[in-house]
Amino acid sequence: MKLNCDMGESFGIWEMGLDEAVIPWIDMANIACGFHASDPDVMAKTVQSAVKKNVQIGAHPGYNDKIGFGRRSIPHTQKQISHLIAYQTGALQAICQLYGGNVEYVKPHGALYNDMMVDQDIFRAVIDGLTKLSPRPALMILAQTDNSLYKGIADQAGVRLILEAFADRAYTPEGRLAPRSQAGAVYHCPEQIIKQVMQLAKNGCVTTIEGGQLQLNADSVCVHGDNPESVATVEQLFRALNP
Amino acid sequence: MKLNCDMGESFGIWEMGLDEAVIPWIDMANIACGFHASDPDVMAKTVQSAVKKNVQIGAHPGYNDKIGFGRRSIPHTQKQISHLIAYQTGALQAICQLYGGNVEYVKPHGALYNDMMVDQDIFRAVIDGLTKLSPRPALMILAQTDNSLYKGIADQAGVRLILEAFADRAYTPEGRLAPRSQAGAVYHCPEQIIKQVMQLAKNGCVTTIEGGQLQLNADSVCVHGDNPESVATVEQLFRALNP
Amino acid sequence: MKLNCDMGESFGIWEMGLDEAVIPWIDMANIACGFHASDPDVMAKTVQSAVKKNVQIGAHPGYNDKIGFGRRSIPHTQKQISHLIAYQTGALQAICQLYGGNVEYVKPHGALYNDMMVDQDIFRAVIDGLTKLSPRPALMILAQTDNSLYKGIADQAGVRLILEAFADRAYTPEGRLAPRSQAGAVYHCPEQIIKQVMQLAKNGCVTTIEGGQLQLNADSVCVHGDNPESVATVEQLFRALNP
Amino acid sequence: MKLNCDMGESFGIWEMGLDEAVIPWIDMANIACGFHASDPDVMAKTVQSAVKKNVQIGAHPGYNDKIGFGRRSIPHTQKQISHLIAYQTGALQAICQLYGGNVEYVKPHGALYNDMMVDQDIFRAVIDGLTKLSPRPALMILAQTDNSLYKGIADQAGVRLILEAFADRAYTPEGRLAPRSQAGAVYHCPEQIIKQVMQLAKNGCVTTIEGGQLQLNADSVCVHGDNPESVATVEQLFRALNP
Repeated sequence: MKLNCDMGESFGIWEMGLDEAVIPWIDMANIACGFHASDPDVMAKTVQSAVKKNVQIGAHPGYNDKIGFGRRSIPHTQKQISHLIAYQTGALQAICQLYGGNVEYVKPHGALYNDMMVDQDIFRAVIDGLTKLSPRPALMILAQTDNSLYKGIADQAGVRLILEAFADRAYTPEGRLAPRSQAGAVYHCPEQIIKQVMQLAKNGCVTTIEGGQLQLNADSVCVHGDNPESVATVEQLFRALNP
Repeated sequence: MKLNCDMGESFGIWEMGLDEAVIPWIDMANIACGFHASDPDVMAKTVQSAVKKNVQIGAHPGYNDKIGFGRRSIPHTQKQISHLIAYQTGALQAICQLYGGNVEYVKPHGALYNDMMVDQDIFRAVIDGLTKLSPRPALMILAQTDNSLYKGIADQAGVRLILEAFADRAYTPEGRLAPRSQAGAVYHCPEQIIKQVMQLAKNGCVTTIEGGQLQLNADSVCVHGDNPESVATVEQLFRALNP
Repeated sequence: MKLNCDMGESFGIWEMGLDEAVIPWIDMANIACGFHASDPDVMAKTVQSAVKKNVQIGAHPGYNDKIGFGRRSIPHTQKQISHLIAYQTGALQAICQLYGGNVEYVKPHGALYNDMMVDQDIFRAVIDGLTKLSPRPALMILAQTDNSLYKGIADQAGVRLILEAFADRAYTPEGRLAPRSQAGAVYHCPEQIIKQVMQLAKNGCVTTIEGGQLQLNADSVCVHGDNPESVATVEQLFRALNP
Repeated sequence: MKLNCDMGESFGIWEMGLDEAVIPWIDMANIACGFHASDPDVMAKTVQSAVKKNVQIGAHPGYNDKIGFGRRSIPHTQKQISHLIAYQTGALQAICQLYGGNVEYVKPHGALYNDMMVDQDIFRAVIDGLTKLSPRPALMILAQTDNSLYKGIADQAGVRLILEAFADRAYTPEGRLAPRSQAGAVYHCPEQIIKQVMQLAKNGCVTTIEGGQLQLNADSVCVHGDNPESVATVEQLFRALNP
């Protein structure tokens, strides 16, 4: 079970996230590419950090919307989605080449990620944006109870999927993330987060918000390095997974 | 003698240049990469056009300044220059991969081009931004009477230089472009433009603004496709060079 | 019956619209404010042109989306809508003060205009963004068969509404614009455009796409200055309305 | 002696400065206007805070350069400078009107401030950008040993100047700020900062970096609210000035 974390989301003079503190405790860095956050210099700094710590690099492309931090769904054609995926992934790949790294996967950000998970056409457009890249990156998506539809599309395109679960979010019995508005939907207590990740790692399941068991095959778990508390939890997670 | 032309400098809904009209008559397309002009969709359209017409593709990166169209010199560190070169070239390379093209060279745009030609440190930073890219692109710079300094730096980095001359600009006896403010500095008449290019192609020299002969080894000549008249001149040039 | 026209939608070096050609034939200029198009210099040029021709000035604020030209609906809170209306209107007002003009009304642009017409909360947010401005501008909205709901909200806030109809669009019997996909929805022939405007001006009605009569009280008609043909039609319209 | 502080320099999701902590201890808030930092929502929040604390509001316009935080000198014509001053000041004025505030002065930011102080033409352009605004704001500039040239220009335009000194910077005997590279050029110790401000307030002079006395008439002192230590110093300063 690999830990992945969004990184490099500073922009110009504005800093965000405790990247340096969290990077020793993760396996995969999802690096912003200059559309929803970051700029070429922040990307270069983050790539160097990932290369130094031997952390896998993923592109984390988003809608071109810094004011909204890529969290607002903005209408795009499929072609436009493919182009923005390729543009941002290629830009990060070149920065990687400067510093001895390589983009091994792509994880869309924010609203683009959500749109991709609910709209098959957007998913296909994302696939189209990376299947011809050389070397071809994998694609990280949300692990669901049934991933067969998206897996079929990706297989046909020759794109490897990486399925991710969330460490700090409760799941519904249907295998969806419980809405943030619901009580208990977001875990704040480290014990609960660690318990969910270990359950995923060992048994391939989670305890749903209603108390039942839900099977969920995940290759990676998304963690956060926003503040000292979350970094401490990530360190604990990493130590538990790599005893 | 190859003809190169800046292309793909539209942005969103705003169109610029008669790209479709001029592309049959050029050999090399310098394609804007989203910083001084263009966006991922315009890049995709331009790349497809170049691939279809079998025109060589070059990245045309500029300062991040759409309002100033990359024509204003903006202070950057050397690292920042390297990063913006890599970012934009990598972004275009990925778009090329979507449509079967390849970035064969880089020609900096506007103020970045001028800054590179007068400041050796900026030239070195440009070189640093592309020497580790894979495949490694060539670099197009201004042909001067003595190119040995820049050639030495590029050779050491393993970067091939492409020397370009200007079709419609008069040269001083020292081999500089005569300032636009000087009478006769810019050629408007097609005959004069064609004469200069043929002289470059056949004899490796130009007639200076003072009437003397200046030796100038150029691999390529920069032409423009802004309006129907300039496109017609480019067509004439192409036919004269490829009889 | 006043003619209004979107203007000042160039951006940096990129030009759009035949502003200088159309401005003698219109009464009201809807001037872009730097978010979906324009910049401070384009605004200054457009304001000077309007002041010189004695044309009323309106602010034409849009979503902050140059790539999409303000035509994509982007989620905003009501407060955010109010702030972007105020910001853009105030910016244009200051440019007006430099050149002896005044912002007399506000007409939201593109997706913001459409969102305002279908979502009462967005309409209220627009009202909130301009009701405290001093001097308070009027608000231009789409004339509908029944404007009472929006009129009530505006009255309560003390905001004067300007109702606009479209010169080149067919109306449904319900008083909506026929969708562009429907045959006959967009008028291209000058005679048809002029007929519709004169009918609106003289009788306060239009002939619907199904041939019936529809009452429509409009204070202004929206025209376009995109190309020489549309400018010629606007000139004809202006002469017909001001014999 | 009034304390002024740059504020509202967050952008979208990225936060900067301890605005809420420092605002009770200052007299004048220089509020960023969306070009080098901020956006309409951050502006609205900052204006509300200033209105609530009864702090004077100044516009803090900068070059349109978020990546460089307005700290890079970018070539502009005089007209362009006037337009960007008017645009940003007008935008802030409208936000002020929403929340019961008023822009009482303008203090250019970063490179624009520095360029204005060394280039008389840029100073004139700034003056031109605000002299026709209604109500006309004052202009805050750097207090120098001899302010007569700039005072003459401002007087002629009917613009009131506010002269500011720096609390934490050493002055040369010529009345310039000692360059940051020089030892002792920046004061970090609160006692030294407070001593300089009290000397300015009581005696209209500072002790130069070489130990001599320099006369300096200042209306305001620039302070910073970047971190808890600087906020504590500002509180001490405010209490010392308002016993």
